[in-house]
Amino acid sequence: MHVKTTGTIHGVGLGPGDVDLMTVRAHRLISAAQHVAFFRKAGRAGRARKTVEGMLPEGVIEFPMEYPVTTEIPVDDPDYNAVLSEFYATCTTHLRSLAEGGDDVVVLCEGDPFFYGSFMHLYTRLKDIVPVQVVPAITGMSAAWTASGQPITWGDDVLSVLMATLPEADLVRHMAAGDALVVMKIGRNIDKVRRALRATGKYDAAWLVEYASMEGQTVQKLSEAEGRITPYFSIVLVHGNGRRP
Amino acid sequence: MHVKTTGTIHGVGLGPGDVDLMTVRAHRLISAAQHVAFFRKAGRAGRARKTVEGMLPEGVIEFPMEYPVTTEIPVDDPDYNAVLSEFYATCTTHLRSLAEGGDDVVVLCEGDPFFYGSFMHLYTRLKDIVPVQVVPAITGMSAAWTASGQPITWGDDVLSVLMATLPEADLVRHMAAGDALVVMKIGRNIDKVRRALRATGKYDAAWLVEYASMEGQTVQKLSEAEGRITPYFSIVLVHGNGRRP
Ligand SMILES: C[S@@+](CC[C@H](N)C(=O)[O-])C[C@H]1O[C@@H](n2cnc3c(N)ncnc32)[C@H](O)[C@@H]1O
Ligand SMILES: C[S@@+](CC[C@H](N)C(=O)[O-])C[C@H]1O[C@@H](n2cnc3c(N)ncnc32)[C@H](O)[C@@H]1O
Repeated sequence: MHVKTTGTIHGVGLGPGDVDLMTVRAHRLISAAQHVAFFRKAGRAGRARKTVEGMLPEGVIEFPMEYPVTTEIPVDDPDYNAVLSEFYATCTTHLRSLAEGGDDVVVLCEGDPFFYGSFMHLYTRLKDIVPVQVVPAITGMSAAWTASGQPITWGDDVLSVLMATLPEADLVRHMAAGDALVVMKIGRNIDKVRRALRATGKYDAAWLVEYASMEGQTVQKLSEAEGRITPYFSIVLVHGNGRRP
Repeated sequence: MHVKTTGTIHGVGLGPGDVDLMTVRAHRLISAAQHVAFFRKAGRAGRARKTVEGMLPEGVIEFPMEYPVTTEIPVDDPDYNAVLSEFYATCTTHLRSLAEGGDDVVVLCEGDPFFYGSFMHLYTRLKDIVPVQVVPAITGMSAAWTASGQPITWGDDVLSVLMATLPEADLVRHMAAGDALVVMKIGRNIDKVRRALRATGKYDAAWLVEYASMEGQTVQKLSEAEGRITPYFSIVLVHGNGRRP
């Protein structure tokens, strides 16, 4: 009799981009993968897939998961969620069938999988059905503050991590309350971020880090980047100023 | 003529504890170290040093940096800062002399060096004098939320990282404002943390993670750990609940 063992879905954090900053565990899992799955925008190679170029073993089977085009639908329209929800369900069905067929799958995740990551949407759908393992990783923000050459938090500093997609009033409220700040998902929200930082007197202390630890990394005062179009991989930082002997 | 090149001080993040979660770069630097320096409490082996047991090359020279005993001095007493400041200055002098003598030094750091780390106190004193390089790492909090089996932040969730050493009123204010919460440096402040979480209606949603990714890891609802003495390596988490298609 042949007993098939269910395979495992590994959500593997790649870290901020530099392969040298990948964990030993991620490296091992990726180099021995049977299947790799990864998100990408339609028509793009995908950052996660590009990061592991040259590391994948021969014969690996690739499963690109292409985001549906949602640019026409406002984020708060119920249709937006419906389209994405269907997309994640389709991905889940495929991953589940691979695991139930006895195969292991490595899902490549940018940064840390459980920190604002897309893999979380697959994780919640899969975790009670097939074995799922998550490998944490260095976040983009850690690479950003390292690149800035200044520690992010001292003593009792409060660190607030804010998405630039928040309404401006919320950004202002949280920026006023926090000591150290990390702002992510900037893109077209950069002017809103600037206004909120100005309103809380923190604009002159803010740094913009693009492509942290990746090719093309830049580090500059935000005030010196007026008019700049910021890429997807951008983070704004305000360093804390807490107790330091 | 013999020209001596100044050596480099590497502040190397070890990550949360599991050596498999160390970066490829950290692994390489540690395995080839000429000198390793690390903080420890007097009379203790030191967590960072223990983590790299078995990885150090033969002939490596060790420089344990033993924290002065400050338990008798209140943290807000100027003497507290003076004692620590002198300690960091002494460590700096030694590291500087090694680098100026042409040697490279690996300073072992728990978690990510620039995130509430002790190395930051050496970094600020050394960075304008000798070459210093920092290797980021997975934070303790990433390992904690991974261990909890639940993503920490979704959609536009605000993540607030709070030190349990803050005054209770500040904890309450920040806990009320944030969506997802991470509370670190808990130790003897656990009851204050409980009260603040209760005051903001978040107590029942809080998790306690001890020794994340280390031997002895535990994950439990905070409410089910009443009366428990929490170790130094403890983190309290409240997961965010943001938008998820
Ligand atoms: C959907 S979130 C994913 C975060 C990721 N899971 C992590 O742990 O960093 C995407 C945002 O992360 C930030 N980000 C991630 N990696 C980055 C990097 N290497 N450089 C700059 N920003 C980065 C950017 O703000 C980007 O908009
Ligand atoms: C001085 S801070 C250093 C933080 C470290 N640099 C990092 O990146 O996580 C020490 C606190 O970090 C938290 N911590 C660090 N690593 C941990 C782990 N593996 N498990 C639980 N808590 C940890 C604990 O709350 C501890 O009191």
